[in-house]
Amino acid sequence: MSNPVYKMIELTGTSPVSIDDAVQNAIKRAAKTVREMKWLEVVEIRGRIDEDHVGQWQVTVKIGFTVLDDDED
Amino acid sequence: MSNPVYKMIELTGTSPVSIDDAVQNAIKRAAKTVREMKWLEVVEIRGRIDEDHVGQWQVTVKIGFTVLDDDED
Amino acid sequence: MSNPVYKMIELTGTSPVSIDDAVQNAIKRAAKTVREMKWLEVVEIRGRIDEDHVGQWQVTVKIGFTVLDDDED
Amino acid sequence: MSNPVYKMIELTGTSPVSIDDAVQNAIKRAAKTVREMKWLEVVEIRGRIDEDHVGQWQVTVKIGFTVLDDDED
Amino acid sequence: MSNPVYKMIELTGTSPVSIDDAVQNAIKRAAKTVREMKWLEVVEIRGRIDEDHVGQWQVTVKIGFTVLDDDED
Amino acid sequence: MSNPVYKMIELTGTSPVSIDDAVQNAIKRAAKTVREMKWLEVVEIRGRIDEDHVGQWQVTVKIGFTVLDDDED
Amino acid sequence: MSNPVYKMIELTGTSPVSIDDAVQNAIKRAAKTVREMKWLEVVEIRGRIDEDHVGQWQVTVKIGFTVLDDDED
Amino acid sequence: MSNPVYKMIELTGTSPVSIDDAVQNAIKRAAKTVREMKWLEVVEIRGRIDEDHVGQWQVTVKIGFTVLDDDED
Amino acid sequence: MSNPVYKMIELTGTSPVSIDDAVQNAIKRAAKTVREMKWLEVVEIRGRIDEDHVGQWQVTVKIGFTVLDDDED
Amino acid sequence: MSNPVYKMIELTGTSPVSIDDAVQNAIKRAAKTVREMKWLEVVEIRGRIDEDHVGQWQVTVKIGFTVLDDDED
Amino acid sequence: MSNPVYKMIELTGTSPVSIDDAVQNAIKRAAKTVREMKWLEVVEIRGRIDEDHVGQWQVTVKIGFTVLDDDED
Amino acid sequence: MSNPVYKMIELTGTSPVSIDDAVQNAIKRAAKTVREMKWLEVVEIRGRIDEDHVGQWQVTVKIGFTVLDDDED
Repeated sequence: MSNPVYKMIELTGTSPVSIDDAVQNAIKRAAKTVREMKWLEVVEIRGRIDEDHVGQWQVTVKIGFTVLDDDED
Repeated sequence: MSNPVYKMIELTGTSPVSIDDAVQNAIKRAAKTVREMKWLEVVEIRGRIDEDHVGQWQVTVKIGFTVLDDDED
Repeated sequence: MSNPVYKMIELTGTSPVSIDDAVQNAIKRAAKTVREMKWLEVVEIRGRIDEDHVGQWQVTVKIGFTVLDDDED
Repeated sequence: MSNPVYKMIELTGTSPVSIDDAVQNAIKRAAKTVREMKWLEVVEIRGRIDEDHVGQWQVTVKIGFTVLDDDED
Repeated sequence: MSNPVYKMIELTGTSPVSIDDAVQNAIKRAAKTVREMKWLEVVEIRGRIDEDHVGQWQVTVKIGFTVLDDDED
Repeated sequence: MSNPVYKMIELTGTSPVSIDDAVQNAIKRAAKTVREMKWLEVVEIRGRIDEDHVGQWQVTVKIGFTVLDDDED
Repeated sequence: MSNPVYKMIELTGTSPVSIDDAVQNAIKRAAKTVREMKWLEVVEIRGRIDEDHVGQWQVTVKIGFTVLDDDED
Repeated sequence: MSNPVYKMIELTGTSPVSIDDAVQNAIKRAAKTVREMKWLEVVEIRGRIDEDHVGQWQVTVKIGFTVLDDDED
Repeated sequence: MSNPVYKMIELTGTSPVSIDDAVQNAIKRAAKTVREMKWLEVVEIRGRIDEDHVGQWQVTVKIGFTVLDDDED
Repeated sequence: MSNPVYKMIELTGTSPVSIDDAVQNAIKRAAKTVREMKWLEVVEIRGRIDEDHVGQWQVTVKIGFTVLDDDED
Repeated sequence: MSNPVYKMIELTGTSPVSIDDAVQNAIKRAAKTVREMKWLEVVEIRGRIDEDHVGQWQVTVKIGFTVLDDDED
Repeated sequence: MSNPVYKMIELTGTSPVSIDDAVQNAIKRAAKTVREMKWLEVVEIRGRIDEDHVGQWQVTVKIGFTVLDDDED
């Protein structure tokens, strides 16, 4: 289509490993049901503390994907 | 799953009674179709004015819920 | 008029009772001199502390009202 | 229903013509699958530059619509 | 006066035509009662959706004008 | 002292009852160890969702209190 | 009145001397027509540059004052 | 280069015609000296008021362009 | 220590004289109990109005200081 | 206690290695004196540049911990 | 030119004396190489603490200047 | 010079590897033409999605460097 339309969804990925990994986990999960994902923006970085270290990173991302002709919004 | 992923949706609940009630109404409605809701964040508090009082509270919340294996995003 | 214009004013209502009541008090007072108020948005929630409790809620709201043909801005 | 609930979605419309047109394109596309859309708010205005002019306007809007009794959230 | 003082008011102009036109309508209306308007800043762009298009643009602007010696604030 | 200095601390109060009650609980707890609390500002309103309602309100407040001559900062 | 209501207005004071002086000029001017001013908040600090120095400070303040029983809003 | 680096500059374009035209004027001027401009983001929309209309739109944009191997930053 | 950790506290200094002086008063008071203060950031500038001038400047600052080995957080 | 209260403190951790490591260093240091830390939020990511690379990451986090019955605030 | 274009640069001026002086120092330095500077906006006020007072004010300003026909951007 | 002046530039570094690496790439590139870089601040973290993972991290940083006597701004 000459004038593409994109939709944004907001997900929080988690990981015991790193900030980057938490983002990758969010994208990997989204890819199971969302096609044509194009870009992401990190909107919040949080974490659960286990005594003396970050036990779980929680990173919230906005994901933009192309709305296809047969998509439900 | 060891690395849960959460999705956020944004709803506006309304109520003639109070701010708190408007939030509860949004959650109650969402519970009809969304499972595993975990937390909310209030992002905007507005209201419709009827002459000399707030006739309808309008409270926008972000709701986070666990993305399950069989969910559509 | 086909293209209405609205004006916003900013008031702080107070109450010893609750957040909601502080907003209602601001609207009630504004209604004495402002006609055609339509909506409000809460922009700040503060309070005065009396020893071990909130003694006075102070809630700042933006109020939007229709500018009528005979209004002074 | 006496206490309506609204849902917000976020879309980016595009257009080679103008900012306004990019918004209209987002709404037109959303109307294919979403009923009862009520209002929008522009949250970001971006564009792709083709050498010496804006070749594609990209305008992100939040759209609010009534959640109906038979809606999936 | 060597040290001018300016006052800001906040108006929402509306238009079925375009964002720019909604701003112009706000200024035109304000000019009926406010003298010496100098500048504006767009603070919010919203709209009412009529089925599949923006039926009414609603643009909120802050307007700055010189406080004259005989002005009421 | 002619030029008082105030310190701000940030607390999150919780309550199953209401937003207002969560704030009151934060103040009540702080009053056990902090003297001369003067004002508060609500900075975040969140909640835990239990299935179909808010089970616990979580309201974060900034509290300002006078720094006394014998205080540790 | 047991539950006072306050109104906020926004002014820009100017001064060739300093930031503080620009604020004082805004307050001094407002005092000609507004009674019961209580507090201010600085919301923007700008200036006009004359070649190699700030020739005019422009400081925008929000001013809060008690709404009296005989006030027009 | 496998890992491109982009630089952002901030310009204010002006126009008596429209918001869109003010942006186009900023891009057109930048194109005289900057190569490889890729995208823009609107960061502020202001205007000069001439009596009862906007006489000059002033739109501030951030422009992103690829840093080439022979560029000065 | 090779990887220093800093702590931030938030204080409001006051002064009848000027914005700068209010900040200095906050630092002077903090220096009585806090060692190794490194930097500050102004986060809010407010004031109490006495009829027609600012009677008391109230400036809120964040202060960063090195956490030493024998500090209580 | 049925209605727990949490306190937030703000720390800046540093590391020559990575953003994640700077956060971990802040938590590790805080754990020496603070019990019952629950969560963190990243509020600022800065760094010191040594010629052509980041020599020290400086990451500011807000840490939330349960206020216990015998805590000083 | 009928449609002037302005460019913004961001500088941090410093001074042991005052906030105002730090701004003036930034402008004075910029004037050595930049022509046609028109306005500034203060975007951040920080300072270095020397034991019990602010030893160096650090004020970040955005400066707007006219882009001339023979300018490099 | 007793009162140093700093300039900020804004760059977006990219990397297929990690957030940290994207920042390092921006600094490395800037070091080719900018001397005396002192600090950076991360202002935005985005990424390009390649099907089911982040294919390119895009991290925007503000870089501060000392303005030297022979610098062009």
